[in-house]
Amino acid sequence: MLALTLVVLALTLGGVVAGHVMADSVVVGVDFGTLSGRAVVVRVSDGVELGTAIVTYPHGVLEQSLPNSTVPLPPEWALQVPQDYRDVLRQAVPAALRRSGVEPSAVIGIATDFTACTMLPTTSEGIPLCELDEYRENPHAYAKLWKHHAAQPQADRINELARQRGEHWLPRYGGLISSEWEFAKGLQVLEEAPEVYTAMARWVEAADWIVWELCGTYVRNACTAGYKGIYQDRTYPTSDFLAVLNPAFAGFVKDKLDQPIADLADRAGGLSAHGAALTGLPEGIAVAVGNVDAHVTAPAARAVDAGQMVAIMGTSTCHVMNADVLREVDGMCGVVDGGITRGMWGYEAGQSGVGDIFAWFVANCVPAAYEQEATDRGIDVHELLTKMAADQTVGEHGLIALDWHNGNRSVLVDHELSGLVLGQTLATRPEDIYRALLEATAFGTRRIIEAFTDAGVEVNELIVAGGLMKNELLMQIYSDVTGLPLSFIGSSQGPALGSAMHAAVAAGAYPDIHAASAAMGSKQQAVYAADAASAADYDELYAEYLALHDYFGRGGNEVMHRMKARRRSAHVTRSRKTKDNA
Amino acid sequence: MLALTLVVLALTLGGVVAGHVMADSVVVGVDFGTLSGRAVVVRVSDGVELGTAIVTYPHGVLEQSLPNSTVPLPPEWALQVPQDYRDVLRQAVPAALRRSGVEPSAVIGIATDFTACTMLPTTSEGIPLCELDEYRENPHAYAKLWKHHAAQPQADRINELARQRGEHWLPRYGGLISSEWEFAKGLQVLEEAPEVYTAMARWVEAADWIVWELCGTYVRNACTAGYKGIYQDRTYPTSDFLAVLNPAFAGFVKDKLDQPIADLADRAGGLSAHGAALTGLPEGIAVAVGNVDAHVTAPAARAVDAGQMVAIMGTSTCHVMNADVLREVDGMCGVVDGGITRGMWGYEAGQSGVGDIFAWFVANCVPAAYEQEATDRGIDVHELLTKMAADQTVGEHGLIALDWHNGNRSVLVDHELSGLVLGQTLATRPEDIYRALLEATAFGTRRIIEAFTDAGVEVNELIVAGGLMKNELLMQIYSDVTGLPLSFIGSSQGPALGSAMHAAVAAGAYPDIHAASAAMGSKQQAVYAADAASAADYDELYAEYLALHDYFGRGGNEVMHRMKARRRSAHVTRSRKTKDNA
Repeated sequence: MLALTLVVLALTLGGVVAGHVMADSVVVGVDFGTLSGRAVVVRVSDGVELGTAIVTYPHGVLEQSLPNSTVPLPPEWALQVPQDYRDVLRQAVPAALRRSGVEPSAVIGIATDFTACTMLPTTSEGIPLCELDEYRENPHAYAKLWKHHAAQPQADRINELARQRGEHWLPRYGGLISSEWEFAKGLQVLEEAPEVYTAMARWVEAADWIVWELCGTYVRNACTAGYKGIYQDRTYPTSDFLAVLNPAFAGFVKDKLDQPIADLADRAGGLSAHGAALTGLPEGIAVAVGNVDAHVTAPAARAVDAGQMVAIMGTSTCHVMNADVLREVDGMCGVVDGGITRGMWGYEAGQSGVGDIFAWFVANCVPAAYEQEATDRGIDVHELLTKMAADQTVGEHGLIALDWHNGNRSVLVDHELSGLVLGQTLATRPEDIYRALLEATAFGTRRIIEAFTDAGVEVNELIVAGGLMKNELLMQIYSDVTGLPLSFIGSSQGPALGSAMHAAVAAGAYPDIHAASAAMGSKQQAVYAADAASAADYDELYAEYLALHDYFGRGGNEVMHRMKARRRSAHVTRSRKTKDNA
Repeated sequence: MLALTLVVLALTLGGVVAGHVMADSVVVGVDFGTLSGRAVVVRVSDGVELGTAIVTYPHGVLEQSLPNSTVPLPPEWALQVPQDYRDVLRQAVPAALRRSGVEPSAVIGIATDFTACTMLPTTSEGIPLCELDEYRENPHAYAKLWKHHAAQPQADRINELARQRGEHWLPRYGGLISSEWEFAKGLQVLEEAPEVYTAMARWVEAADWIVWELCGTYVRNACTAGYKGIYQDRTYPTSDFLAVLNPAFAGFVKDKLDQPIADLADRAGGLSAHGAALTGLPEGIAVAVGNVDAHVTAPAARAVDAGQMVAIMGTSTCHVMNADVLREVDGMCGVVDGGITRGMWGYEAGQSGVGDIFAWFVANCVPAAYEQEATDRGIDVHELLTKMAADQTVGEHGLIALDWHNGNRSVLVDHELSGLVLGQTLATRPEDIYRALLEATAFGTRRIIEAFTDAGVEVNELIVAGGLMKNELLMQIYSDVTGLPLSFIGSSQGPALGSAMHAAVAAGAYPDIHAASAAMGSKQQAVYAADAASAADYDELYAEYLALHDYFGRGGNEVMHRMKARRRSAHVTRSRKTKDNA
C-alpha cells in the first residue's frame, strides 16, 4: 500500500522514477538553531543519516551592538542577521550532500525547522529590512531572536487586556502570552521604531521566511501561527482588541501578519531557481512548510502518540506532546490544533534555562583547581563535576535551587524570575551547587508534567532528545525525580532528521508524518528507570522546591521582579553615565 | 589632675619613680587568638606601640586527633594545648620587649586577653589535667576552644529547661545559651568523661588561667563570668536548675566554677616569680584580671561611651558596645554589668560568618580566568573582585544574599540557618555575587544595630577594627547600608593594645580604663560617610533582605533547618557506608 502510494506520487516528481524513490531517494533536513545551522541528508526508506554539515552563524547572536557598530543595544535584546541563515543553505546543504556521497538528483525534498519565535520585518518580496541601506543601522530592522526579551512591557499589556476582556484564546497559552512571541515583538517595533513598522510589508517568522527564500512562496506554518501567532479556532486576535493596545496596531494582523496557513509536512512549493542556486539541489523538488526545532523532533523520536512527552534538552528544554484531548493546562506555552502533527492537539511547554545554567555555572563559578584537575584527567569540567557529584546520596549537599536563571517559561510563564541557591555553608563545594542545579531543572520538568496530569492530559513516557542526554547523572536524576522511565531518541540530530521526515512527506514519499516517523524514526526504550529509594527522597526535596517555586513565583514575595526592575534601571543609569562621559 | 594622680599612684609602684611613669613607663599587652598569641609593648603616656612579637601555637587547633595520637576526634571538636599559651608568654613577651628597646625595669604591668569561651579543667593549683600523665590521652582533659561545638545537645537541654522554668537570666542572652559556653561544655565533660569531671578541681576560662599562671592568683573576670558563665545579678544558675539537667551536675557552680570575680582592669595580683621567669619581666609588677579579645578592643578604639558600637571584623564579626541602660535586646549574645568597662552595661552581638564567607567564595566560586588576572595584576582575588564590583551602582547586579553560611549568631541565634543567593541570571558574574555577599553582611550588621535601637539602646557611631577595614568598598557599603559614619581604630593590633591599657590601669597609671583609653587609644573619626543616594537605594534592598531574613529565619519556611538535618543524616549514612566498605 505504501509502496504503491510512493510509486504513484513519485511519478509526479519530474525526473524521479518509481523504485528509485524507494531504494535510493534522499531528503534534506535543515535545522536552524540559535548559534548555527545543520543540514543532514537522510535516506527516505529507513531514515539512515548519510551526511551532515554544520555552519556557525558568522554574526551569532547580537546582544551588545549591531555589526560594525559600537552603539550598545539595550539589555534583554537579542538580534540575528538573516544573511547568516542563507549562508547555512549555501554552505551546509552542499557540504552535507557531498559527505553523503549522494548525487543531487537523488534529493526529492527539503524541509527546515527553526528556533521560534524568531521574527523579522521584510518587504513584500521578503527582503529583510536590515538589508536595505536605509535601515541597516536600525536595530528594529533585524531579526528578533526567540530570546529577545525586551518586549516584556508590550507582553504585559497584551496579557492584562486579554484578561480584562476574557479573550477566548488566552487559556490556550496557559493564561499568558510571551514577550518572545509575534504580537509583543510586533508591538515593540510599532512603538519604538514606527518607521520600521510602517516600512515592513510583512512581519515574518524566520521559520517561514527561510521557506519563502527556498520556494518563493510565503506560506505560514500551522505550528508557529498557533503557538506564537495566537492563531486559534481559525482566527487571530481581533483588530478591536489590537486597537485598544495602540490605535496604530489595529491593522497589525491584516496588514503585516495574515497569510495562508498550511499544515505541517505540507508542500509549500517547489524549490525555486534562487533556492536551487543557493543549495545546489534540483529546482522543483518539494519544499515543506516551515516548522520548529522542538516540534519536528517528536516524529524523529517516534513519539507522536498521545502521552509521549518529548523533552529536547539543550541550553533550554522544550517539551512537546500530542494528545487526543483539548485541555487548558496551567502555564503551558500553548496548545495548537495540528501543532505537532496534523489531526492531534499539540501541547508545548518549556524550561527557559537548562544546559545554559550548567554552562553558566562552569564558566563563572568553578575555581582554577577544578579546571586543572579536569585538564589533568582529560575530561571537561562538566564531566568532572558530574563525577564528583554522582556518588552523593539525595540531599547530602544540603542545597535547594530554583532553575530560573533565564526566567521561567512553564508553568509560571515569567521571564522576570531569576535563579536562587539556598543552603550554602562554608563546606559547600562547587560539585554540590552543580548537582543542586541539575536537580532544580529536574524539579522544573516534574512541575510541568504535573501541570499536564493535573489538567487531565496523561503523560506516560519521557523521551529525551538533545545534547544533555549524554550526562548519565542528569538522566538518572530526571528519572528519579519524575518517577518515569526515560527513553532516548535514536538520533543525535533529532531536529534535522525530523525535518527530513517532513520533506519526505511533502515530497509524497509517505502519506503522513506518522508513517514517516514509523519508518525513519528511532527510539531507545526505557534507558533509565527510577531508583525507588532516591525517588522517595526526591519527593521530599521536590516539596521544598515547590514551596520556594510558589513563594517566589506566585506572589508570596515579588523580590525577583523588583530586583530585575532595579537591575534594569541601574543599567539605564550606567549607560546614561557612560554616554555623558563619552 | 591626671598628672597628679599618676604621680601619687606611681609612688606606690615599688622601684618606679614619679615622672618616669609619665615619660618612659611601658606596659605589655598579650592577645591570645585562635592560632597565635601576640605581645605588644606600649608606652603608658600616649599608647605608642614600641615593639611587638607573634608566636604561633605549636599545636594550633586540635580537630583531627590529640598530639602524638591517631585516634580521631569526633566532628565539631576543637581543642588546644595550654602549654602553647605559656610558650607565647615565654617567647613573644621577651621578643616584643627586645624589639621595643625598652629595659624590663620600665615595664609596670602586664595584661592579657583571650578567645572566649575557651575552657580547661585544672587541679586546685591550676595545673591543666592534660599535663598529668593519667589524663594525657583523654580529649576532655584538654582546653575546649571557643569553636568546639560538640556540646550542642547539652546546650539544647539547658535552653529547653531554662525556657520551661522561665529562668530570669535567659533573656540577657537573647534567649539562648550557646554550646560554646561554660555550662554546656562543662556538662559535656560530666556526661562523656565523668572521670575528668571528678578529677578537675576547677573548670577555668583560659582568659583567667593565663592570669593565674602569671600571678599565682585565680580570680575570675567579670566579662567572661557574665557573657559565658551565665553570671547575672551576682548569681549563677541555681543548683536546683543544674540538678534537673543531671543530678551529678548540681554542684557544678560551687565545686568547679565559683571563684572571686574582679572587674576588668583590676589588679589580679603581682607578677609571680614563676611569671617573671616565664616573661622576663620584673617580679611584682601589676597583672590585670583576664579579658576577651573583642571586648578589650573597645578602649583601644576610644569607643567606651554609650552608643559607640565597635565592630571587630575578621572571619566573623563581634560587636561590643557600652550603654547606660539595661535592655533586653532581641537576639543579642549577652548583656553584662561591667562586661566591657566597669560601671556600664556591656552589650555583645555577633555575625558568625563575614570574612570567612568571602574567603569561601574566593576559594570555591571564582574561575581560573579571575585567578590569572589577579596574578597578572599582582593583587589577590579579593582585591580583584572588589575592584570589579566597586564601580557598580546599588542594585545593578540584581542580587540579594543571606549571610548565613556559618549560621546566624545575632539576632536569630540559629546555627542551623544557611546561606542564600537570589537573583542570578545567565549574565551574573563572580564580582556580582561577591558584592552581594559583602552587602549581605552589611545588612546583617544593620539588622543588629536595629535590634539595639528597637530595644531602646542607642547606636550613634560604628567603629571598625579588624582585618576587613582595609577593603574600601566593603567599608563604603557598611556606611551606606547602616547610614552611620564609620570610624576606624587607629591601631592594627587592637586587642593587644587594649590589653596594654588594662595593664596601665591595673598598675595605677590611670584611674580607670576611660582615662587610659583617652590617653592611649586612637580612632580615625568618620573615615567613611554614607552617600545619600546609595543609602536611599540600600534602604530598599535592606527591606528585601529583611523580608527574606524573617521568612527563612523566623519560621515562614523552615527549609534551611530541614536541609541541614537532611545533610547531617546523609553524612551519617555515608560514613556508615564507608565503614562497612572498610
